[in-house]
Amino acid sequence: MSKYDQDMEPRGANHVALTPLSFLQRTASVYPDRAAIRYVGTEQTWAETFQRCCRLADALKQRGVGRDDTVAVLCPNTPAAVELSFAVPMAGAVLNMINTRLDAEMVGFILDHGEASVFMVDQGLAEVGERALRFATVDPLVIDIEDPTQAKGSSIGEVTYEALLEEGSIDAGWSFPPDEWDAIALNYTSGTTGNPKGVVYHHRGAYLNALGNALEWSLPQNPTYLWTLPLFHCNGWCFPWTVAAVAGTNVCTRGVDPAEIINLIATEDITHMCGAPIVVNMVTTEAERRGERLPHLVRMMTAGAAPPAAVLDRAGRIGLEITHVYGLTECYGPNTVCAWHPEWDELPAEDQAVLKARQGVPYVVQEELAVLDPETMEPVPADGETIGEIMMRGNVLMKGYLKNPTATSEAFAGGYFHTGDLAVLHPDGYAEIHDRSKDIIISGGENISSIEVEGVLYRHPAISAAAVVARPDDHWGETPCAFVELREGSDTTELEIIDFCRDHMAHFKVPKTVVFEELPKTSTGKIQKFVLRERARDLSD
Amino acid sequence: MSKYDQDMEPRGANHVALTPLSFLQRTASVYPDRAAIRYVGTEQTWAETFQRCCRLADALKQRGVGRDDTVAVLCPNTPAAVELSFAVPMAGAVLNMINTRLDAEMVGFILDHGEASVFMVDQGLAEVGERALRFATVDPLVIDIEDPTQAKGSSIGEVTYEALLEEGSIDAGWSFPPDEWDAIALNYTSGTTGNPKGVVYHHRGAYLNALGNALEWSLPQNPTYLWTLPLFHCNGWCFPWTVAAVAGTNVCTRGVDPAEIINLIATEDITHMCGAPIVVNMVTTEAERRGERLPHLVRMMTAGAAPPAAVLDRAGRIGLEITHVYGLTECYGPNTVCAWHPEWDELPAEDQAVLKARQGVPYVVQEELAVLDPETMEPVPADGETIGEIMMRGNVLMKGYLKNPTATSEAFAGGYFHTGDLAVLHPDGYAEIHDRSKDIIISGGENISSIEVEGVLYRHPAISAAAVVARPDDHWGETPCAFVELREGSDTTELEIIDFCRDHMAHFKVPKTVVFEELPKTSTGKIQKFVLRERARDLSD
Repeated sequence: MSKYDQDMEPRGANHVALTPLSFLQRTASVYPDRAAIRYVGTEQTWAETFQRCCRLADALKQRGVGRDDTVAVLCPNTPAAVELSFAVPMAGAVLNMINTRLDAEMVGFILDHGEASVFMVDQGLAEVGERALRFATVDPLVIDIEDPTQAKGSSIGEVTYEALLEEGSIDAGWSFPPDEWDAIALNYTSGTTGNPKGVVYHHRGAYLNALGNALEWSLPQNPTYLWTLPLFHCNGWCFPWTVAAVAGTNVCTRGVDPAEIINLIATEDITHMCGAPIVVNMVTTEAERRGERLPHLVRMMTAGAAPPAAVLDRAGRIGLEITHVYGLTECYGPNTVCAWHPEWDELPAEDQAVLKARQGVPYVVQEELAVLDPETMEPVPADGETIGEIMMRGNVLMKGYLKNPTATSEAFAGGYFHTGDLAVLHPDGYAEIHDRSKDIIISGGENISSIEVEGVLYRHPAISAAAVVARPDDHWGETPCAFVELREGSDTTELEIIDFCRDHMAHFKVPKTVVFEELPKTSTGKIQKFVLRERARDLSD
Repeated sequence: MSKYDQDMEPRGANHVALTPLSFLQRTASVYPDRAAIRYVGTEQTWAETFQRCCRLADALKQRGVGRDDTVAVLCPNTPAAVELSFAVPMAGAVLNMINTRLDAEMVGFILDHGEASVFMVDQGLAEVGERALRFATVDPLVIDIEDPTQAKGSSIGEVTYEALLEEGSIDAGWSFPPDEWDAIALNYTSGTTGNPKGVVYHHRGAYLNALGNALEWSLPQNPTYLWTLPLFHCNGWCFPWTVAAVAGTNVCTRGVDPAEIINLIATEDITHMCGAPIVVNMVTTEAERRGERLPHLVRMMTAGAAPPAAVLDRAGRIGLEITHVYGLTECYGPNTVCAWHPEWDELPAEDQAVLKARQGVPYVVQEELAVLDPETMEPVPADGETIGEIMMRGNVLMKGYLKNPTATSEAFAGGYFHTGDLAVLHPDGYAEIHDRSKDIIISGGENISSIEVEGVLYRHPAISAAAVVARPDDHWGETPCAFVELREGSDTTELEIIDFCRDHMAHFKVPKTVVFEELPKTSTGKIQKFVLRERARDLSD
């Protein structure tokens, strides 16, 4: 044995599981009286937040919730959603934030697949929560999350969030997870090939990406962060943990209303926020409508479709500084950043926009991002032209897909995580996505699987063939556009098909356009989607 | 097995050893043309630095240096010292930076104890290096580090640094360490009880504390960092790795000359630097002498004895913003910070100084700092009065002491690292050191063991008893003050004793004052050092 290993095994004093939960404990200790969460005129400090999270974790444990139990949550960006980011894993359990825009059937599927032991539902979402429980076969403990802004609706749960919290001991502490590889969260993908997959996060990755966000964004101590990004998207890109790490303040808001956002920026002195490009656009448009700049510089991280040059330029003029990031559910949200070079500030605005539209380079906490030929696993030349697949390797990648070893193995085949995004590598080492291999449509920051929408269309009695592609849209970025062939002798209308879709899927996934025509096919009968994409683009011109 | 563990084992794609070496690779890829190191008019980019480090690592491997071999380095803060922070561990070897102020005998002891395979010596330190080799029994490969500012001295090595580098392949890559618990560096303590101890750092801790420095200091991307802190102190407090992580620029300087520092701040546009309080004082005094403020705000981290209120106040006036940190060799340099509360800015200057003089709270990357009764291991009350020992637990602590399992076990007894520093805990959770349990004198940023100096004094034929304590000093912070009793019939002088000491220890450790008098003792004959500390204080008034 080497002299550097002899009597040098890790011990409790010098080896502790990395977990973002430690950030809460530390900030509650260092800045106990600083505002942790503000929401509709209420404010709670970091000391209060820590104590509430400890009590919630204790209450869950007393209810029998423990290591690797799933706690599903259907809740917009209210204080509860921030607290649960800590309280659930503090109980050793796994937090499953569910997209609040999903239909009840899909929520029910997720409750079943994740084997939810607990289901917490915001008052404003009680109806969909109740219907989801009817679809589901699991029988979780149901908890009502009350909200002062919501009308007192019918209770669907056994106990309210605040009553549950009261069950926890005021003196309850918490324990570090026994292993940093333990699961901290479960996040479902949008389901590109049928049912969504359950992406499992580990404490180690959540810890590292939370710090990565701070480092890449040059985030100083004590920022004020506005929750314009849904907490159900990759645990809000890990930002509940980032904000705790830098002792910032979370400003909560249920919806994404541009007038409210601009008001909050002023009244709450917001310094940082995240969101889809559509939110950048909405805020910018609202400021322009008011004819005024933001009262101070606000930094905003955005991901998804790259913001168009014109939007970047307009955002800059109103005082919004954009950082463009990239990621997927499987990598904890963004772990790739279009790292800015100070000298690019001197370039003309349109050149800056071209540079900023690129997905970029890995976070400093992620070890590798490569653009590889998926057949040979060889790197493509960094010529800005040759297309390969973005692959990742490092500590900011999921543990795997829940109960899906085949998908997990495929995702990690060849020692890299396969993103499915097709990109070129520029000579300066920055990756730029050129196309998606998975037929994803990104509309208003939400991923929509064209295959899922096609599946519903095929269930319509009049439709014999269907293909759904993205149609460019100034407001939403993209919208789903359906091309359908009708059965002989059948008859239907665009409106009738759209209504059919609304009955069978979340509303944001419903095609905004339906085109009736014979679908272009290859000689072997495969639908030529690239032809349809061009037609959809032409529709928008 | 839990569903969250089934088929979810770590694999090459999603679990990579944490190592600060990844920061170099990443920054060389993202900012290849940005200045990595500047020194006396020369500049090299991050791409060049990465390539040079890969070649150096390859050359060392070709010379037979591999995993867990020790590479000792005696070198001031020149570009080589920055490069070796990466190149040595990239070869799998362990970097042992040696304090350049030590005497040859001590350097020889360190070469032997660390079993150095390679010894790299800066030209300006060739004499002490050569004499150290004569004291040592090991026979390392010796390498001359040339420096354009130094006169061509006699070569003591087999090959020069640049010639060694040329032996490495221009196409050499590097590998991640097989395990993040592998050793990255070896740093010797000042030796409070006889011989110094070899503190072993692991890659995991170095990675985390490098990021911790950036987070606590709100260090933005692309800072310009001046090397006023010796790289042989805890690997420059992990800052070679921090600067790489945030794609900054290292500005090197061999010495700590206040006029040069102020010139470099202006010409190199320095934004950040670190150093002992004496450096704060020197820079401030020089700026005052010139009658001018620094050309722009410079942020400075300082550790050791807390800077006096007057110095903090004066530093602020010339444009130096001080962050007070605390740590020991065993915890990678600072891992504790007097985290500033924005509202403290409103307090009178003297109140701010009192707050800032405290050692504070753990870095966000260190899991726990406690003030415990060392007998019972119970926390002391947070009353600002009850004295306990500062203890630490977390990921930013050494692997252990090299070849010293007893000292390692003692240091980690009871599940905490024992710092030996006695402190109170204030009601707001900030620790403040009140006394040291190890009789350390801190002079000009260097730790001096009073026991070591006493050991030498006892070897003087005229001395029958000796005790060394700290004497407060405006310039050095503290200086060693010796109280001695002479043997009956013996006679000697202060000058003669000082000369004797200079022959037997590093010059910075030699007592500046010698007092001849009967030593105050307890009834059991134990020397009452607290009485002598008071007398030494009176001497300075």
